[in-house]
Amino acid sequence: MSASLSRPRVGVWLIGARGSVATTVVTGCAAVTAGLHPPTGMVTETPAFTDSGLPALSDLVFGGHDTLDCPLPKRAETLTAGGVLPPGTATAVAAELAAADREIRPGGPIAGDTRSETELITAFADDIRDFVHRHALERAVVVNVASTEPASQGPGSPLPASTLYALAALRAGCPYVNFTPSEGMHHPVAARQAEQSALPYAGRDGKTGQTLLRAVLGPMFAQRALSVRAWSGTNLLGGGDGAALADPAAAAAKNAGKERVLADTLGTVPEGEVHIDDVPALGDWKTAWDHIAFDGFLGTRMILQTIWQGCDSALAAPLVLDLARLTARAHETGRSGPLDALGFYFKDPVGEGPSGLSEQYEELVRFGRSLGQADGEGRAARSVTGPGRTGEAL
Amino acid sequence: MSASLSRPRVGVWLIGARGSVATTVVTGCAAVTAGLHPPTGMVTETPAFTDSGLPALSDLVFGGHDTLDCPLPKRAETLTAGGVLPPGTATAVAAELAAADREIRPGGPIAGDTRSETELITAFADDIRDFVHRHALERAVVVNVASTEPASQGPGSPLPASTLYALAALRAGCPYVNFTPSEGMHHPVAARQAEQSALPYAGRDGKTGQTLLRAVLGPMFAQRALSVRAWSGTNLLGGGDGAALADPAAAAAKNAGKERVLADTLGTVPEGEVHIDDVPALGDWKTAWDHIAFDGFLGTRMILQTIWQGCDSALAAPLVLDLARLTARAHETGRSGPLDALGFYFKDPVGEGPSGLSEQYEELVRFGRSLGQADGEGRAARSVTGPGRTGEAL
Amino acid sequence: MSASLSRPRVGVWLIGARGSVATTVVTGCAAVTAGLHPPTGMVTETPAFTDSGLPALSDLVFGGHDTLDCPLPKRAETLTAGGVLPPGTATAVAAELAAADREIRPGGPIAGDTRSETELITAFADDIRDFVHRHALERAVVVNVASTEPASQGPGSPLPASTLYALAALRAGCPYVNFTPSEGMHHPVAARQAEQSALPYAGRDGKTGQTLLRAVLGPMFAQRALSVRAWSGTNLLGGGDGAALADPAAAAAKNAGKERVLADTLGTVPEGEVHIDDVPALGDWKTAWDHIAFDGFLGTRMILQTIWQGCDSALAAPLVLDLARLTARAHETGRSGPLDALGFYFKDPVGEGPSGLSEQYEELVRFGRSLGQADGEGRAARSVTGPGRTGEAL
Amino acid sequence: MSASLSRPRVGVWLIGARGSVATTVVTGCAAVTAGLHPPTGMVTETPAFTDSGLPALSDLVFGGHDTLDCPLPKRAETLTAGGVLPPGTATAVAAELAAADREIRPGGPIAGDTRSETELITAFADDIRDFVHRHALERAVVVNVASTEPASQGPGSPLPASTLYALAALRAGCPYVNFTPSEGMHHPVAARQAEQSALPYAGRDGKTGQTLLRAVLGPMFAQRALSVRAWSGTNLLGGGDGAALADPAAAAAKNAGKERVLADTLGTVPEGEVHIDDVPALGDWKTAWDHIAFDGFLGTRMILQTIWQGCDSALAAPLVLDLARLTARAHETGRSGPLDALGFYFKDPVGEGPSGLSEQYEELVRFGRSLGQADGEGRAARSVTGPGRTGEAL
Repeated sequence: MSASLSRPRVGVWLIGARGSVATTVVTGCAAVTAGLHPPTGMVTETPAFTDSGLPALSDLVFGGHDTLDCPLPKRAETLTAGGVLPPGTATAVAAELAAADREIRPGGPIAGDTRSETELITAFADDIRDFVHRHALERAVVVNVASTEPASQGPGSPLPASTLYALAALRAGCPYVNFTPSEGMHHPVAARQAEQSALPYAGRDGKTGQTLLRAVLGPMFAQRALSVRAWSGTNLLGGGDGAALADPAAAAAKNAGKERVLADTLGTVPEGEVHIDDVPALGDWKTAWDHIAFDGFLGTRMILQTIWQGCDSALAAPLVLDLARLTARAHETGRSGPLDALGFYFKDPVGEGPSGLSEQYEELVRFGRSLGQADGEGRAARSVTGPGRTGEAL
Repeated sequence: MSASLSRPRVGVWLIGARGSVATTVVTGCAAVTAGLHPPTGMVTETPAFTDSGLPALSDLVFGGHDTLDCPLPKRAETLTAGGVLPPGTATAVAAELAAADREIRPGGPIAGDTRSETELITAFADDIRDFVHRHALERAVVVNVASTEPASQGPGSPLPASTLYALAALRAGCPYVNFTPSEGMHHPVAARQAEQSALPYAGRDGKTGQTLLRAVLGPMFAQRALSVRAWSGTNLLGGGDGAALADPAAAAAKNAGKERVLADTLGTVPEGEVHIDDVPALGDWKTAWDHIAFDGFLGTRMILQTIWQGCDSALAAPLVLDLARLTARAHETGRSGPLDALGFYFKDPVGEGPSGLSEQYEELVRFGRSLGQADGEGRAARSVTGPGRTGEAL
Repeated sequence: MSASLSRPRVGVWLIGARGSVATTVVTGCAAVTAGLHPPTGMVTETPAFTDSGLPALSDLVFGGHDTLDCPLPKRAETLTAGGVLPPGTATAVAAELAAADREIRPGGPIAGDTRSETELITAFADDIRDFVHRHALERAVVVNVASTEPASQGPGSPLPASTLYALAALRAGCPYVNFTPSEGMHHPVAARQAEQSALPYAGRDGKTGQTLLRAVLGPMFAQRALSVRAWSGTNLLGGGDGAALADPAAAAAKNAGKERVLADTLGTVPEGEVHIDDVPALGDWKTAWDHIAFDGFLGTRMILQTIWQGCDSALAAPLVLDLARLTARAHETGRSGPLDALGFYFKDPVGEGPSGLSEQYEELVRFGRSLGQADGEGRAARSVTGPGRTGEAL
Repeated sequence: MSASLSRPRVGVWLIGARGSVATTVVTGCAAVTAGLHPPTGMVTETPAFTDSGLPALSDLVFGGHDTLDCPLPKRAETLTAGGVLPPGTATAVAAELAAADREIRPGGPIAGDTRSETELITAFADDIRDFVHRHALERAVVVNVASTEPASQGPGSPLPASTLYALAALRAGCPYVNFTPSEGMHHPVAARQAEQSALPYAGRDGKTGQTLLRAVLGPMFAQRALSVRAWSGTNLLGGGDGAALADPAAAAAKNAGKERVLADTLGTVPEGEVHIDDVPALGDWKTAWDHIAFDGFLGTRMILQTIWQGCDSALAAPLVLDLARLTARAHETGRSGPLDALGFYFKDPVGEGPSGLSEQYEELVRFGRSLGQADGEGRAARSVTGPGRTGEAL
């Protein structure tokens, strides 16, 4: 992952930097860079994005916040035992894991934390700026891959941690991506500040499995004028995510995104519920069963069922790398505000955009093309490593 | 289904007119016209096609060829008992079923038929022209919804029945739609004549269930850069179709279309086979199981399975009505040759066109729009009821 | 269903007599008696029970309680439209449906009911006794097939309706079967009285679908020494039952039974939850998905999934007829107390008995045999139509 | 795996000794003996068999024949990469793998083999006897775990390899177990000799996945008097087994066993086919989908589907260990001829016995008990290590 002196490097600052997704991101980026694995699952490595001016995988530098303290190499070992990472890979990139591990700073608030919200934001922003300066990065993108928080309690309650991090990103002058259903930049306080900043942001809630399927099956029913009566789903998952989502409040946040995909693609909300069960025995593996009852011609009742068995971290990691690269390049070329061309990646996308996956893909490809054309003007203008820029955006 | 004197009426001539699909087409058209059921499954009844100048459902007149002699009302009764048609519907449209039944002529060749191929083509074309003239139809579309034939034996062997009918359509000056995997207009003899005619045609093999799914799931894997390793499928179906496809030669024709969808959308042919089993106990209902093994990031193995339980006749019938209307209108507006904008409907579409369902839908909508804009010029120019036109195309 | 004068007839008094299950019971009993359908699903019609001395289907007379007032023939019409009853059957047995309809008495307590619990019990018992006397029945069995009640609130709260009916059965001197998870005879008040009575009773919660499967799959894993880690399930159902079980309290009662089967057959309670979703679009049809994660040799993770698509009323009805016949005969031959040989039929069986389906079946067959051997002695001794017997048991 | 001098040791001679199943057997026996893993999947390690007098796992000594020459430790490495063996296990038992590897002799006939059938049998028998003598084993059991052979071509054709090995077992005086669908001892030539020998034998075709399920679901439908209309199945598997069974002749042998289970438990052969597809991408993992269409009360159509995802080697290995121990003990206690009490383990069991899994389990437990009671008499009488015994049985 060494870069020549002249090649600008880009930071990827992960909130939840010791989690399964983050560990897979760091391991995978190094493994693909080293040629150990093909870049399966990375859309930005397909020919359509060759000329988009994206930062190279070898130019990404990782750091982040986490409240846990399990070292990344150890975490990678656990993921290898669980079948998430292939045998031998974590060992092969041990140096890169150790390097990223050194760049992880304590997150918050932790139990008994006496710091005010402002102090926390300042501390987090300082961590990010320090990371950027020490590594002489051109810019850094903040990506939230932490466990899902419970839905917010409403006005007057403390800011959720995800929003503190989002505000820290703004303050450090960094683009922001929310890969989780947590509130982050959607909180009114953060949304106001985001609007006033000149920073691009994207989110929320990565579309990795059941919702990915729904984003192609919903349009299929709509395009064929078939009438969906009920769409029911059950998700079984272990790992930390299963436990976090066993909290009904956290699950509610997640399910809202899933429902939105159906409502947007079908034009109506069918009957049916979505369950998320914590099944520790499944480890990092997830099974999602969907049962769709629909009416055909003359009201004939038909049924489609889908069973998706995947590993969430392995599904999320390449998308996180895609998003970091696309958002970094968007920043470089002067984009600001919600990046609605990234709806392809999210359950509940910011901004306006189509809801079917195919249209979202077309929009993404168009966006990639426009990022390439924008080259030249943007880079100079918005480099955060230029004097007097980084950390003074707000 | 009465039409005012001034409203031009359009014939729908069904090859396999006493089969499940044809019976459902006739019953359903009448039931929707009468307001007994919403037009679920008919894409041409959605707002996108309001201004396409399509013939009204109430202006369609049905007839066709079949080698069987079970009366349509009786067949509709059987389909009602089997759950394909809702209780009461066939009875409510008994008059329309009887009317269509009167317009069904004996097909062929039958066992021991001594007529030459030319005589058969002539007889079939005469039947169609007679139908058009007696009903003073503006034009008629020939649609093949007969059982799948075995794949052709190659040069020198007799023309398959489906090709005889296709040639009869050409001779009668009628547009042609092949909803089955049979050879029809694809036979070199017919293909040559079709080229020389000024008639539009479409096909082949309606995309109703498993392949419909594949046409949205294939692009999903491709767009997400996920690597499909194996795609296996089993279809269980009863009814006449199950028995016909239990013949390996007939199944081969069908499976070629299914494979084409994967090859075109994935850009590669994955491992895996497709089975079609005749299971008489299932009647007109079909279960299709697909098992897709794919690699995610760093080669992690994941699996998607789909189970589709549908009624083929109920899935096919609205598409047949769509195709009849679109093809009739294409003829009216002067289109000729392969209608590649109709790839949305077929496993193995004629002409050039995208292979993902979403792009096919967009193309269909564009086509519908263009059909509306073409109005005026086409209708007068190509009416087959005008003097000296019908039946003299070849 | 006419019986000769000399043949003793047996009453089947259904709690929830206007529901789907009860309607299917009455329709089916008449249809099988008339030879319109084979007795599929009725274990008591298999050769193993030929000599058990069970009352003939043609000797069963139906009545019952319900708080609804939809006439049985109308209910049967709805079930026919929903595909639960085959077309034509309800019409063919219209007379029997009307006869049963005339024997249904208002249930309770209804909203605003001012009657005391004692008054209700007395009224219910009077209804049953009146039914027995008017038809000169040898005996009557009370069977609860009403919607599931919420789990009881504990000591001091009013007796649940199901328990009022159970007490009425005791007072009327009738054997009692609880086909639902409601409390019924399990309430301490009723349990005490049942013990003092000389009446047989059975229950609870019919094992019709998902739990039936669990009762054979659980033993399979245990016998093969495979280690089940997690057993998760989701049930989708419409009809009244779906709505009733959408109430978490009612679902809790049901799920306890499902869990018991796993605990008893596996010898341990695996991870995993069970969901019951109300999906009105499914009508009387139910889909149950089970996902079982188990360890094989050396800890290899494996998965079994089952999808059960059935119609609960059609699954329950033949079991209800079985139970009515077996319990009537048990009463006739002098059995009293919990009939633990009937565990084959229940999720949460009374008394002691094996939990695997196969052992339960063997026990049932043994019981059937013993019922046959007991003939002669029992009938005279326990006939409830003899002078001074009926209704004076308590 | 050290055994005290006085403890008699038992040989397990594996035909196909370098295959996945054999490698898993050797690895697993050592790992369980060393306490690295619990004996999941081994029925003989459950309390019911404590007093059966079975040889201890630590007293088993492995050897065998194979035509391949991949060393066992290397094969174990491949299985570890494929997820069949847990990480670290093969390394931990490297010594035991190497020891077994040294005891593997070249199988046959190989391509261009000029030896006659008699010469091959003699050579194989000599290998086995040599193994027994060198290790001073009390006895050895021959177990066929090689790839499935094509079904035999009938009278006059050469003896299949599996039968040559079976005859060698007889000649060496060893009990024989056929875990595959190959002909082995079922060939008339071998069957005749087996009858005349005093040796016990068992088989054939291990019941590990789809058929295991069928052996509990078939009885369920029968016991509930539900009428199975069609039972269809598809198996997807990679590994060597997938390739071997892609040969229709080999698949035919396998499917006959699967069908027998249905015919025996249902009392009728339902509609439906079974497919076995070679899907190399699945490696040693297998997916089996079953679709069962059945009629309930009044002919209502219902469906059960099962999806079994397992690792065949991990399912087979503990059963092979069970069978080796049970058969060795049966030999020790003087049993001869077909061991019909072992039907629990086989698709197509030798001898007479029940076909439902539960009854088979009960019979197995009874057999285990009788093996314990037989102790004393048998051991002395039948030890093959006694002077003049081994290899002279025929």
